[in-house]
Amino acid sequence: MIKVFHHPFSTSCRFVRLICGEYGVPVEFVVEKPWERRRDFLLMNPAGTLPVLVENDGPPICGATVIMEYLDETRGYTMGDRRLMPGHAETRAEVRRLVDWFLGKFDGEVVGYLVHEKIFKLEIPRGQGGGEPDSAVLRAARANIRHHLKYIGWLTATRDWLAGQRLSFADLAAAAALSCVDYLGEVPWDDDETTKAWYGLVKSRPSFRPILADRILAIPPAATYVDLDF
Amino acid sequence: MIKVFHHPFSTSCRFVRLICGEYGVPVEFVVEKPWERRRDFLLMNPAGTLPVLVENDGPPICGATVIMEYLDETRGYTMGDRRLMPGHAETRAEVRRLVDWFLGKFDGEVVGYLVHEKIFKLEIPRGQGGGEPDSAVLRAARANIRHHLKYIGWLTATRDWLAGQRLSFADLAAAAALSCVDYLGEVPWDDDETTKAWYGLVKSRPSFRPILADRILAIPPAATYVDLDF
Repeated sequence: MIKVFHHPFSTSCRFVRLICGEYGVPVEFVVEKPWERRRDFLLMNPAGTLPVLVENDGPPICGATVIMEYLDETRGYTMGDRRLMPGHAETRAEVRRLVDWFLGKFDGEVVGYLVHEKIFKLEIPRGQGGGEPDSAVLRAARANIRHHLKYIGWLTATRDWLAGQRLSFADLAAAAALSCVDYLGEVPWDDDETTKAWYGLVKSRPSFRPILADRILAIPPAATYVDLDF
Repeated sequence: MIKVFHHPFSTSCRFVRLICGEYGVPVEFVVEKPWERRRDFLLMNPAGTLPVLVENDGPPICGATVIMEYLDETRGYTMGDRRLMPGHAETRAEVRRLVDWFLGKFDGEVVGYLVHEKIFKLEIPRGQGGGEPDSAVLRAARANIRHHLKYIGWLTATRDWLAGQRLSFADLAAAAALSCVDYLGEVPWDDDETTKAWYGLVKSRPSFRPILADRILAIPPAATYVDLDF
């Protein structure tokens, strides 16, 4: 049995949830709030970050790209055409570069800001940095997302999928990031039609359904979040 | 022929130089100053980050962990016992977790601050953020390094090498990070004897020699930098 410690509005965690869905891995998901720095969680992952995967009595597998490689190494070979990591070293490098881009750069410049300001700050006590969103931070994130959408647009216009001819981990990483922002109604979809069409394809996959069912009580999702013809 | 774009005082770049040394890969190294945002460099890696590797007419391989996997996939199988990535999925996950720790967390909390304040700011024009080091930043980095040394000490006290019984990418990542800080005389070696002994072993390897020869004109290395019995 696999257990994954995650938070519903984390790009890296959504990425791992999508991989588990695509690879048909049954998982027990446990919500963790990393800002609480729970002792037993820090013993599993001293970095204090999500996601963390534990398989049976095995050691904790920490971090989204580490989990991606682990699931691909232990399950990918059974997936045939639906394997999310290509076979050739150069194409694998391109998949990994894009996964790093979306989990690192895009998350750091866009998703992390918006989710922290609009969602996490509702839950974090005021004395520890919670409270109203900082409008300067929101403005920066809204400026940054346009550059990223252009880049995704360029990729989807020149390739079938983000990293090449087949759906790969890169598409799941990008869609995981966008989905967090989309919940908050912060994706200017009309900027780029090819990006929108590509996202529609990923969003329609069965692996995406649990993510479209995520809800926060205080913030209902944007009107287009669940709509497959947004 | 392999070309690697790098900067001598970057953890991620030193990590890749060490891998190339260990795997016996002949490389032409090209120094790149990423803060100049050179157009041809951005065309290779739109993220604008180092290191970038190009093999013959192949596509750019961008980022330290992407290069690590690429070199291991294309060369590692010839290395036998000296392969830097273990065979078992769980141990591979531990190597990757620690590589992420040292290139990400340790670099972000310690090395990046010290190198930026003490080295890069000498080269960056004053109007673009160059100038004297910020003493508050130096103080933070000096506090942070003690926690990291303790963690390395715990790892080296409980295992032969950082990730297990054999030298792996994890040791090279940690040593790459420490070497940048050691040049600046900022490693409190006396805090932890097992860490010091482990670093002495890695530092004595032939792959480390080019790194010990790195010099910045304005800043001579600390007295212990080259000394193998520091």
